[in-house]
Amino acid sequence: MKFNKVTVIGLGLIGGSLALALKESKQVETVVGIDTNEDSIKYAFDNKIIDEGASGINEVISGSEIIVISTYVGNIPNTAKSVFDIASEGTIITDTGSVKSSVLSEIEPNLPENLHFVAGHPIAGTENSGVKSADSNLFKGKRCILTPTEKTDLMAKSKVKTMWETVGCKVHEMDAQAHDHIFGVVSHLPHVVAYALINSVLSAEDSDELLEFAGGGLKDYTRVSASSPEMWTEIFKANKDQLLNAISVFKTSLEKIETAVETEDFDTLKKELEKAAKTKRNL
Amino acid sequence: MKFNKVTVIGLGLIGGSLALALKESKQVETVVGIDTNEDSIKYAFDNKIIDEGASGINEVISGSEIIVISTYVGNIPNTAKSVFDIASEGTIITDTGSVKSSVLSEIEPNLPENLHFVAGHPIAGTENSGVKSADSNLFKGKRCILTPTEKTDLMAKSKVKTMWETVGCKVHEMDAQAHDHIFGVVSHLPHVVAYALINSVLSAEDSDELLEFAGGGLKDYTRVSASSPEMWTEIFKANKDQLLNAISVFKTSLEKIETAVETEDFDTLKKELEKAAKTKRNL
Repeated sequence: MKFNKVTVIGLGLIGGSLALALKESKQVETVVGIDTNEDSIKYAFDNKIIDEGASGINEVISGSEIIVISTYVGNIPNTAKSVFDIASEGTIITDTGSVKSSVLSEIEPNLPENLHFVAGHPIAGTENSGVKSADSNLFKGKRCILTPTEKTDLMAKSKVKTMWETVGCKVHEMDAQAHDHIFGVVSHLPHVVAYALINSVLSAEDSDELLEFAGGGLKDYTRVSASSPEMWTEIFKANKDQLLNAISVFKTSLEKIETAVETEDFDTLKKELEKAAKTKRNL
Repeated sequence: MKFNKVTVIGLGLIGGSLALALKESKQVETVVGIDTNEDSIKYAFDNKIIDEGASGINEVISGSEIIVISTYVGNIPNTAKSVFDIASEGTIITDTGSVKSSVLSEIEPNLPENLHFVAGHPIAGTENSGVKSADSNLFKGKRCILTPTEKTDLMAKSKVKTMWETVGCKVHEMDAQAHDHIFGVVSHLPHVVAYALINSVLSAEDSDELLEFAGGGLKDYTRVSASSPEMWTEIFKANKDQLLNAISVFKTSLEKIETAVETEDFDTLKKELEKAAKTKRNL
């Protein structure tokens, strides 16, 4: 056994899958699950995703070696504050939020001296959400990014790393700002673009007919745009500056293609498409 | 046997797959393939995709009941003109181009009285191209759109319909303008957006590092953006007006999300995302 007790707060797709993967690893004595939705707790308990559960942050979490906050990113700081009041001395708190600078700037200044915080982000997920989509293989071979600061305890970081490796992640470290820049571009921007694309189709008078032919290319986008609106609103909010920057760069690229079509500059158009098409081969 | 002789001009993914599917259907006495690339002809012959082949439009096509022009959309009108000079009386010429109005407006006024033209577009394809990707199941269960005009011969249309049904397509008819509007939105626009998104990532100084994390969401776009730049340049060119209109509508949707993030109007933001997310469930 690597851990005596790990608590996961927020039994969504990520939290539920983590709890399940930790249970199945048999490396954790007790996996505790907290979720405000009692049905999620019941489901998690009945399906052996957790050993114990509660619908609020109470004494059930005390004695945890690691507490993983896996709520929507906007709720992470407040959830952490509730945890501070109850967590036992030496407990390591970590999170799974998709944005790291805003989480760190709200949590680190308030962190009690006898607790540790390590910011993390497993790069895993599907368009599904909720504990019923929990999958113990969700993290296998995926990256988990930790964004330590100068305040981060090295032993705490090492334990969080071990936890993610236990469920199959390859753990990377980077600066929180760098993380938010990278995921603003490679994850948040593609979501904005997919949402906008689908909405542009919906705004047409003949949108029903258009959607009938979605197989022509549009359908590739609907997996992305079907992701939870609540979750993504919070992510866009938390990563506002990096996201706005990424959107602005994207608009420049879009307008380059638009102008080439408009001015019938088909050499430039072809060059633009060639640049993009090459990329897949290098991925 | 439904047909004595069908000629496919342009043995790419679509033309090659059609030739192969027709051969395998055993409903065509002789399948002829024409391609300027002699290696493609040799490959198609060696792999029993065609019965006869040639690298130019010559007597080999005479006696064809149907001639399918499956070149890039920009080459369809010129290819058709070459066919007019050689095709036997009563031959039905059809095409597989992704844009229909431009093809019709260039071909119909020049069509000899003793030949027929039926414009078509099978909604099938992958990011792969070339005869080596030919797949006899490519059209199974897919739609094929025919865009007849008042000049279209009904018997010719019926024969082209039968050909596509033979390879597994469900055949629909619509007006060429309607077709170009629909596919401008559901197919051409998503390609523009994917190309622009990948290019916006490539334009970053740290693009190599960004691409390392493409699994975060970007990768969903690379299937689309890996499509043939030559082919898509021609499609964008041929459907210029409808495409520019679709890009403009898309920019409005994008800017709605951008403005909501910028002004921190998170109610509007969430509503925008909810609209898009609902769509998948209805598809």
